[in-house]
Amino acid sequence: MKKYTLAIIMLAGFWLVGVHAANAQSDPASFTGALAKKKHYDALYYLNSNDEKKIRATLRNINNALDDPRLKGKIHIELVAFGDGVAVFMKDGPFGQLLQDLQTKGVVLAQCMNTLRERKIDTSELFPFISFVPSGNGEIILRQYVGWAVVHP
Amino acid sequence: MKKYTLAIIMLAGFWLVGVHAANAQSDPASFTGALAKKKHYDALYYLNSNDEKKIRATLRNINNALDDPRLKGKIHIELVAFGDGVAVFMKDGPFGQLLQDLQTKGVVLAQCMNTLRERKIDTSELFPFISFVPSGNGEIILRQYVGWAVVHP
Amino acid sequence: MKKYTLAIIMLAGFWLVGVHAANAQSDPASFTGALAKKKHYDALYYLNSNDEKKIRATLRNINNALDDPRLKGKIHIELVAFGDGVAVFMKDGPFGQLLQDLQTKGVVLAQCMNTLRERKIDTSELFPFISFVPSGNGEIILRQYVGWAVVHP
Repeated sequence: MKKYTLAIIMLAGFWLVGVHAANAQSDPASFTGALAKKKHYDALYYLNSNDEKKIRATLRNINNALDDPRLKGKIHIELVAFGDGVAVFMKDGPFGQLLQDLQTKGVVLAQCMNTLRERKIDTSELFPFISFVPSGNGEIILRQYVGWAVVHP
Repeated sequence: MKKYTLAIIMLAGFWLVGVHAANAQSDPASFTGALAKKKHYDALYYLNSNDEKKIRATLRNINNALDDPRLKGKIHIELVAFGDGVAVFMKDGPFGQLLQDLQTKGVVLAQCMNTLRERKIDTSELFPFISFVPSGNGEIILRQYVGWAVVHP
Repeated sequence: MKKYTLAIIMLAGFWLVGVHAANAQSDPASFTGALAKKKHYDALYYLNSNDEKKIRATLRNINNALDDPRLKGKIHIELVAFGDGVAVFMKDGPFGQLLQDLQTKGVVLAQCMNTLRERKIDTSELFPFISFVPSGNGEIILRQYVGWAVVHP
């Protein structure tokens, strides 16, 4: 019976290691089909530019990720703005409709509070549907530590 | 015997947790030598700029990663282009030789199909050795979920 | 007793899988509070621009990450410069005091040696408190493979 118990432990061990390895590294030999099929994905986009072309590209990129057939219906996205990126959430800016469309698709829109303090911007100057995080940079780090993908287009 | 079995389970448990911890977090006290020595690495580079200086720098960066003594012979790289980055793969552009050199070194060159649709670019306008992915943004997210490193120089 | 042993193995298994799952993926349903509470975090910042505004923003970003209430006292940061980013570490540049302030807070400052070779810059032209890595790009990849968060503001 000792042998039997050991065999079970070893099987359990290999299974656990296998689960971890499969998530940690893909097979380099098979380019296609090497991607994991997960039930759910999370991604954090970050924006720190006030360049209108860059902002529009980032919002379009988020839509493209939401629509990717490999992710569609399985991905949750957060967009965090800091530094010059606060421009995207300003009430007097041109991005309100695009942001509301994203929010309808479940995208969380989060502004760095450090930036507001440094630039003396009041929260009332931002669209009312914006969330807040203590720092955009902390958010980028913390999200990676819970396994989120991070994209900075 | 119950005690003996328990001891084995606990040892197996510590070993498994140890393996995971070693991969997830390096020892902050020892700056050098804290890097894991893996048999294989995968990295995704992404490019979304048509600035020639930025494109040349990205291609040089990929070569530098391939040549890093800590990675040499153990790293597989994919370069995905989207948005303005499609410029790197255009037949009428100046990057053909640099790209073929990278491909000879095993680098996979992948273009976002969303970008081609949005910009009405036909695949025949790109170098014939380019691969395609449904969306560059989806690629960035999916590769992180199978443990690849991601670099956006 | 066999049943008892099996139960322990299964409990151990669920516990181990639970630990891993908690680190790999947050609960999408609970936006706040989904972040892991770790005892220690590591982050690599990379800089490849000589634009003074971009350099100052990156150094400020690092300070913001160090001060984020969710990370304060628990985070170790390394800043690696490559390509045009070498400007931040040049002795004749204006960033000496800001860099020393960061170093006092434990930030490791690392320069890509490839860049020095390519640009024929001698190490003596850099501040004496700078560390060196074989390649900045290798550093970015290797740090991700030991679980570090990576930020490129």
